[in-house]
Amino acid sequence: VPVSNRGMPIETPSSSEPDTPEWVRHAVFYQIFPDRFGRANTDTDLVFQSSTLEAWDSPPTPTGYKGGNLPGIRERLDYLQGLGITALYLTPVFQSPANHRYHTHDYYQIDPLLGGRRAFDALLSTLHERGMRLVLDGVFNHVGRGFFFFNDVLENGEKSPWVDWFRIKRWPLYAYDRNHRANYACWYDNPALPQFNHNNPAVREYIMRIAEYWLGAGIDGWRLDVPHHVTAPGFWQEFRQRVKSVNPEAYLVGEIFKDASQWLDGSQFDGVMNYPFAVATILFAVDDRCRAKYLRSFGTHEHKPLSAEEYAARISHLLGRYPWNIQLSQYNLLNSHDTARLYTLVDGDEDVVKLAALLLFTFPGAPSIYYGDEVGLPGAPDPDCRRSFPPSSEWQEAIFACYQQLVSLRHRYAALRIGRYKALWAQAKSYVFCRCLDHQNLIIAVNAGREGTSVSLTDQIVENLSSPTLLYGVAQLNWTEAGNSKRLVLELPPKSGVVIGTDVS
Amino acid sequence: VPVSNRGMPIETPSSSEPDTPEWVRHAVFYQIFPDRFGRANTDTDLVFQSSTLEAWDSPPTPTGYKGGNLPGIRERLDYLQGLGITALYLTPVFQSPANHRYHTHDYYQIDPLLGGRRAFDALLSTLHERGMRLVLDGVFNHVGRGFFFFNDVLENGEKSPWVDWFRIKRWPLYAYDRNHRANYACWYDNPALPQFNHNNPAVREYIMRIAEYWLGAGIDGWRLDVPHHVTAPGFWQEFRQRVKSVNPEAYLVGEIFKDASQWLDGSQFDGVMNYPFAVATILFAVDDRCRAKYLRSFGTHEHKPLSAEEYAARISHLLGRYPWNIQLSQYNLLNSHDTARLYTLVDGDEDVVKLAALLLFTFPGAPSIYYGDEVGLPGAPDPDCRRSFPPSSEWQEAIFACYQQLVSLRHRYAALRIGRYKALWAQAKSYVFCRCLDHQNLIIAVNAGREGTSVSLTDQIVENLSSPTLLYGVAQLNWTEAGNSKRLVLELPPKSGVVIGTDVS
Repeated sequence: VPVSNRGMPIETPSSSEPDTPEWVRHAVFYQIFPDRFGRANTDTDLVFQSSTLEAWDSPPTPTGYKGGNLPGIRERLDYLQGLGITALYLTPVFQSPANHRYHTHDYYQIDPLLGGRRAFDALLSTLHERGMRLVLDGVFNHVGRGFFFFNDVLENGEKSPWVDWFRIKRWPLYAYDRNHRANYACWYDNPALPQFNHNNPAVREYIMRIAEYWLGAGIDGWRLDVPHHVTAPGFWQEFRQRVKSVNPEAYLVGEIFKDASQWLDGSQFDGVMNYPFAVATILFAVDDRCRAKYLRSFGTHEHKPLSAEEYAARISHLLGRYPWNIQLSQYNLLNSHDTARLYTLVDGDEDVVKLAALLLFTFPGAPSIYYGDEVGLPGAPDPDCRRSFPPSSEWQEAIFACYQQLVSLRHRYAALRIGRYKALWAQAKSYVFCRCLDHQNLIIAVNAGREGTSVSLTDQIVENLSSPTLLYGVAQLNWTEAGNSKRLVLELPPKSGVVIGTDVS
Repeated sequence: VPVSNRGMPIETPSSSEPDTPEWVRHAVFYQIFPDRFGRANTDTDLVFQSSTLEAWDSPPTPTGYKGGNLPGIRERLDYLQGLGITALYLTPVFQSPANHRYHTHDYYQIDPLLGGRRAFDALLSTLHERGMRLVLDGVFNHVGRGFFFFNDVLENGEKSPWVDWFRIKRWPLYAYDRNHRANYACWYDNPALPQFNHNNPAVREYIMRIAEYWLGAGIDGWRLDVPHHVTAPGFWQEFRQRVKSVNPEAYLVGEIFKDASQWLDGSQFDGVMNYPFAVATILFAVDDRCRAKYLRSFGTHEHKPLSAEEYAARISHLLGRYPWNIQLSQYNLLNSHDTARLYTLVDGDEDVVKLAALLLFTFPGAPSIYYGDEVGLPGAPDPDCRRSFPPSSEWQEAIFACYQQLVSLRHRYAALRIGRYKALWAQAKSYVFCRCLDHQNLIIAVNAGREGTSVSLTDQIVENLSSPTLLYGVAQLNWTEAGNSKRLVLELPPKSGVVIGTDVS
């Protein structure tokens, strides 16, 4: 059943398209939770080597540290580059009293347990030498309660010079008292996370300068934590201007779970973390074996698997929602530090994992691998989804091979990165689309059903259909050319997908 | 009544004398409480200009800030240098949530309200251009409870990587709960001030590096807060070695209120804050008008005024206690941020204030003026002794003139700085001593009594007694020279003192 073209994205960027960083379109991101990826003692300072870390392979706990650090990331750059990774997004690295480091204590310090500033500079310069990029996590809505300016308010109450930096409701403050609710604005009523008063021009300027400072230090962009909670008018517009003034190619990606139109008009972010894509893709890729409860960690209450038709409609809607240049710099993902891992969500069904990965790496926008996903690291929702990176003896080799192929394929074919997207076929659990760039036409065909299926494509459906080649996956291709009529019939095994090149130059 | 020579200091340094910084012997210190000395908007950052400061001339409160800053000090350097000040000791300037800044939040940051690092560098370089020195306050026994490493323990409990940095007694920690006593080692049971575990080598190294860092940044020494509470073996010995390796002329002065022999053997400090001198001098200078209660802020329960004989014995004991090179680098004071001001202690009796100042500026060791003392700023014990520096319309001009003369005198006569000290006469409330350097003999004679008195000095008492000149103060000198017999009779008015030069070259 060919799908209509209604809702498909514009095929050529118009002159009013927002400027977004060229490099992001070609990037493959890798998200690292620094406490859990690699731990190295090289270049780290004896003073800050803790003797009370948890065992590397022990289960994650809310408050325990495994001691992963920046030298541990630097040591694995061969691995990452070998996999085809071109950019890292690190969850926060600033000094913070939390293993996830979202409780910022000082925006200008690299956490000592991570190796401090020296380790950071070494990592950043090594990345750049390799032509890789680094995006940091900017948590500018709230701070940790030990953050200096809040700490001063806590100690001095109404007399603090910094009382206007926060939104205090009543005195005295209850910041550490479980018998009282926090009486100041804080993130989801969590007293550990006081919110900035972004209406205070000093606070605003303070944050802008942090952004500028780290760009000046060489980072390639900011992932912005809960930006929808920062509602001061013009805040993110100014943020973009300040950031792009330092580096016009800096990438700004917001953590917006739902419709992000408000932030993706070109005046604020280059893209958002594409959770709607993740939810739709997972719900389409799974058949019925999906732990619905775990899906909530994706910010959704959905759990019903999607048919191909429903998936096509979702994708169509999603691609129609934002300008094309934004689509190309979306941060596409299947998992993050906030979600259960897909592998666990589907009870270790490798076929589903591979199928979803295929849809990720063939979608417009930068694909991101959440560290460990590529080797089938399991993980229930937070904190379990933050397990330490496993030794190779525990890798799921089939998943790893799949990821290697998909990353490689994406790098090989520009059409997968910047070619236009066109849905071709959607029926039951079969979905077919193409990515087309000039004469480079790639057809991606997926059967998410439990039974084998057949898809028939004609030259009325696929432009320039000719001499098909199987580039990825397993399927039987039946190609017939009779006069002006061309037909490609694909026999797709259950829970599988393929990439087919037609007239690939 | 001439005093015996028993207990007098050795007259020439022996070869086993400790090395102490030459410059300190010639220094006149000025202690500044940075929140209260000067406030300037030049060079300060709009972001960190608070709108909730207390009025400059309002009474000090435990938690309020007046907004004094480092540019405010830099602006007044003409004043200080005009007065003859050669070195500043600043109470803490590191980022801290307290107006006195003894609750350290970050040892590597200059407090933003003080103007931050830029203002600090500007102050330091201007001081050095003027040939002036800067000594900072090193608070290395305890930290503020917002200090990163403690904050992490507070947030993560036993799982914190930094749990060994402190001495935890029980879990969970009570740091902000008034219904529980602090269950970790803290300074005088104050939960706001957790103590370091100095037995942890990492902590020790962490502190040593802070000391080295700021010396590397150019400071001229450290005043060390409550060093007797840091009891880890060898700690202060290593501290001295590390500091002197960066700058052999750096000054190390400990805050020891009582007998400091343990720290003044040459292996640790160059001197201590000389509170025993202050107490003896004040109790001798006062007659009966002294607010005994306020004297407790000097770390003493004494309050009975001293006779000249008692004062002579105290001074003799004090000078006999430490090596002569140490004596010359003692930090002598009458007041500090921890004491009631002498002016208030004696109910504004200017004569007593001037008399004590005379004894301060003629004593071996570096005299220190606690900001405002030179203009008669009043102050009951903490927090009242931390009033803002007053406008000139509120200065006690007679006290200011006295301080100006005494500083000038000390700079003019090397004997006052490095000459040997010899007590000559002690009776009732009259005390006479000399400072002698080569042929420069200065006699200091003081009458702390309420009646005029007469003192008779012969060449048996004063070596090389000849042609006396009144250099400071008011007295009638009767000089007789008959054959080999010389006699100087001084008629001293009540509550007054003089400096007399004999054979001054």
